[in-house]
Amino acid sequence: MSGGAELRVTVWNEFRHERTNPAAAAVYPEGIHEAIAGPLRTLYGHEVRTATLDEPEHGLTDDVLERTDVLIWWGHLAHDEVNDTIVEKVQARVLSGMGLIVLHSGHYSKIFKKLMGTSCALKWREADETERLWVVDPSHPIAAGIGEYIELEREEMYGEHFDVPPPDDLVFVSWFEGGEVFRSGCVYRRGAGRVFYFRPGHETYPTYFHPGVQRVIANAVRWCGASRGAAPTYGNAKPLSPIRARG
Amino acid sequence: MSGGAELRVTVWNEFRHERTNPAAAAVYPEGIHEAIAGPLRTLYGHEVRTATLDEPEHGLTDDVLERTDVLIWWGHLAHDEVNDTIVEKVQARVLSGMGLIVLHSGHYSKIFKKLMGTSCALKWREADETERLWVVDPSHPIAAGIGEYIELEREEMYGEHFDVPPPDDLVFVSWFEGGEVFRSGCVYRRGAGRVFYFRPGHETYPTYFHPGVQRVIANAVRWCGASRGAAPTYGNAKPLSPIRARG
Amino acid sequence: MSGGAELRVTVWNEFRHERTNPAAAAVYPEGIHEAIAGPLRTLYGHEVRTATLDEPEHGLTDDVLERTDVLIWWGHLAHDEVNDTIVEKVQARVLSGMGLIVLHSGHYSKIFKKLMGTSCALKWREADETERLWVVDPSHPIAAGIGEYIELEREEMYGEHFDVPPPDDLVFVSWFEGGEVFRSGCVYRRGAGRVFYFRPGHETYPTYFHPGVQRVIANAVRWCGASRGAAPTYGNAKPLSPIRARG
Amino acid sequence: MSGGAELRVTVWNEFRHERTNPAAAAVYPEGIHEAIAGPLRTLYGHEVRTATLDEPEHGLTDDVLERTDVLIWWGHLAHDEVNDTIVEKVQARVLSGMGLIVLHSGHYSKIFKKLMGTSCALKWREADETERLWVVDPSHPIAAGIGEYIELEREEMYGEHFDVPPPDDLVFVSWFEGGEVFRSGCVYRRGAGRVFYFRPGHETYPTYFHPGVQRVIANAVRWCGASRGAAPTYGNAKPLSPIRARG
Repeated sequence: MSGGAELRVTVWNEFRHERTNPAAAAVYPEGIHEAIAGPLRTLYGHEVRTATLDEPEHGLTDDVLERTDVLIWWGHLAHDEVNDTIVEKVQARVLSGMGLIVLHSGHYSKIFKKLMGTSCALKWREADETERLWVVDPSHPIAAGIGEYIELEREEMYGEHFDVPPPDDLVFVSWFEGGEVFRSGCVYRRGAGRVFYFRPGHETYPTYFHPGVQRVIANAVRWCGASRGAAPTYGNAKPLSPIRARG
Repeated sequence: MSGGAELRVTVWNEFRHERTNPAAAAVYPEGIHEAIAGPLRTLYGHEVRTATLDEPEHGLTDDVLERTDVLIWWGHLAHDEVNDTIVEKVQARVLSGMGLIVLHSGHYSKIFKKLMGTSCALKWREADETERLWVVDPSHPIAAGIGEYIELEREEMYGEHFDVPPPDDLVFVSWFEGGEVFRSGCVYRRGAGRVFYFRPGHETYPTYFHPGVQRVIANAVRWCGASRGAAPTYGNAKPLSPIRARG
Repeated sequence: MSGGAELRVTVWNEFRHERTNPAAAAVYPEGIHEAIAGPLRTLYGHEVRTATLDEPEHGLTDDVLERTDVLIWWGHLAHDEVNDTIVEKVQARVLSGMGLIVLHSGHYSKIFKKLMGTSCALKWREADETERLWVVDPSHPIAAGIGEYIELEREEMYGEHFDVPPPDDLVFVSWFEGGEVFRSGCVYRRGAGRVFYFRPGHETYPTYFHPGVQRVIANAVRWCGASRGAAPTYGNAKPLSPIRARG
Repeated sequence: MSGGAELRVTVWNEFRHERTNPAAAAVYPEGIHEAIAGPLRTLYGHEVRTATLDEPEHGLTDDVLERTDVLIWWGHLAHDEVNDTIVEKVQARVLSGMGLIVLHSGHYSKIFKKLMGTSCALKWREADETERLWVVDPSHPIAAGIGEYIELEREEMYGEHFDVPPPDDLVFVSWFEGGEVFRSGCVYRRGAGRVFYFRPGHETYPTYFHPGVQRVIANAVRWCGASRGAAPTYGNAKPLSPIRARG
């Protein structure tokens, strides 16, 4: 799809906090997935569906995956309940070109750990503290329209060391009031697909209603979903140029 | 500018070979710059102007630079004749967000060496040999629509070691019939701008009429010219969070 | 361990070809593992043990892994027979600082795929053709003492696209007589550990007796086994700086 | 030189603050260069000389440069007084393999800007505030022995955006009390040489007496000075493999 066109986006949410934790339900009464999907539909014109853990096949059927240009992932309490077969299908789709945006506590999801190859561990703290996400790569389309930083008055802290591979592009670095830093906007290339990890989004804060956060997610959808090189082929290959006979 | 929109492109060419070397004039009677500009205008709808060394200010006045989203650079015989003040203006524009595409022998241009910080030296040979540019990053928009490789039946050889910084994205690696390899499609981020070096284009071969080469240049124009983060500010800064008084 | 000191190296080999394929047995009568281990012991003074698939726990007990600074991996026919629990232990040791060198057909081993997160697929051909491995990063210690390239008169071809993440350092790129290129020396950081993939080494060619290949492996052992930063901690963290009370 | 051996280090200092500013003289009575050189001599056994701006050729004669494995650079007030010819010689030595460590306000030195190709601009503030340098790459030898972070009770603030190319390795990210972050330990490969930028070291704070800071500089000396690949050759090259005749 060309950069300016509508993309087909699927927002996946575990959708447990909002049904069990009144503090989360108060902030996201329709679920975090709907808060994320809304502006992608109304402000950016994408074709957005949602999918959640407790649907059959977690809402990620072969058909849905096939017709998804960019998948967004939010999970926290129930990473282990995600079926391994579905995880493998999502990985295969990423490698064949689907974009993947992993949010906040999704750092510990099966799909993110599988694509990273590391533990994806980090430090954390819930202390109602300020986070400031600084743009460290102003050449990056994911930072378009953001200004120099995004300030979130209250967020959960995530701190280094974040056990992920060095990002292919590092777009944001977070400052936390309590003294830590975090690589909070990380781009990875995996096969023909692109992955963006974006840190903010604790379930009891209204982070996904923040216009700057919405803009970053929209930028990432466009960037992860842009058209790219044709599918490579693998396996046994005939020579393209002559090989001289050996004695 | 959004990815799908027209961009303002300036194609700069030294324009000496085509006026002094009959072999080059036979291939590019209107100059290499017109061969490059043509498909960007007619196939991709960009607003394209050209500029050449022997024009006043090399055709790169402040006004032209200010109204250029992406600058394309071809030079070879007369790198030293390019005025240092113009080079500094081009560098400043790149750092503030203009895209720059450097072609072939432009590896030794003042502007490329200035942005790289290295000698940009390489091996070379003119021997009518085959080049095959392999896509090594199929996730990259610069490779969109290319397939697995571009084959050029006759080209000048450029070989490693190519003395440039490790590219931020490596999109193409070339194979040469005579035994060398070359990192032939290299992306760099510099300030708010993006730079793409693309190897092919010797003046006596019809390389810039090859549809695959034209497509790569068009992809690179769109990619280097896409919108990005707001301009950062520099210098003395007031604190954003309180600093406790020291005893 | 400091760069100049002896390291504890374990060379792991599937050790099947050499016992079933006369052509492989003729080249490596004591097994590929012994051919690799020899110069690391005699020329470089490391403390080297070997381990093979058919030993209990594949020779990779907790005790062996704990006392290994750098693990070298060669496998081809029986990747699927490697026990998943052992693979997870090896991954955990890499993340906590053990070096890992993966050779040739080890690109499809469980441990390499797990650390990369991609399919690790490639093109291949057995056609007795020349490979030339060019140094593309002369600043890298893994290329120390190598000159500009290593030429192997006969090798199996591996061609792009190689479905791995973009390497953190790209040290070698191979040219193949039949027309392909390949990123043949790739460095990755994973957790506190470092991984080096090195392409050459088909079982029916005397590749591991080539002094240049031996030197690269020895360089990689030193580089992957060098001392590094202390182990990070993860999990819930107290603030290091004061967080102001909210209203 | 092998990783464990003595290296020949030259510590270059502008040496103006310490002779004109009593606050700097009180902290560094023998000059910042001697404070840096001391532990490299006594704790790490390197052969260390010093050189300063007001010496003939700034103390950087051809002979000194030729016999320097790693050059350390501190400057601030008088970047413009550094002779361009000397800067070009230093650049050439880096490209041919000398290590370069640029400290603190050296971000605006001619040599650093020349090697980076960018403005190297940043935000700054003198406000007696705490800096905490977090290790973000625990696999990196430059972080060996450091633990999770270095805390400096009082330092000058440097804040993002730092206008440098994306580092080849990012080792440290700083947190500042007043609300900013900074990529404070950045590795670059340039030609056959390696460059490390390390942020701390304002002239009125005793930063270079901090054991953690001393350890990082010593690690960087070893890392930038380690042996590496042979010198590449450039220019016209004969074919290594046969090129078929064209009709």
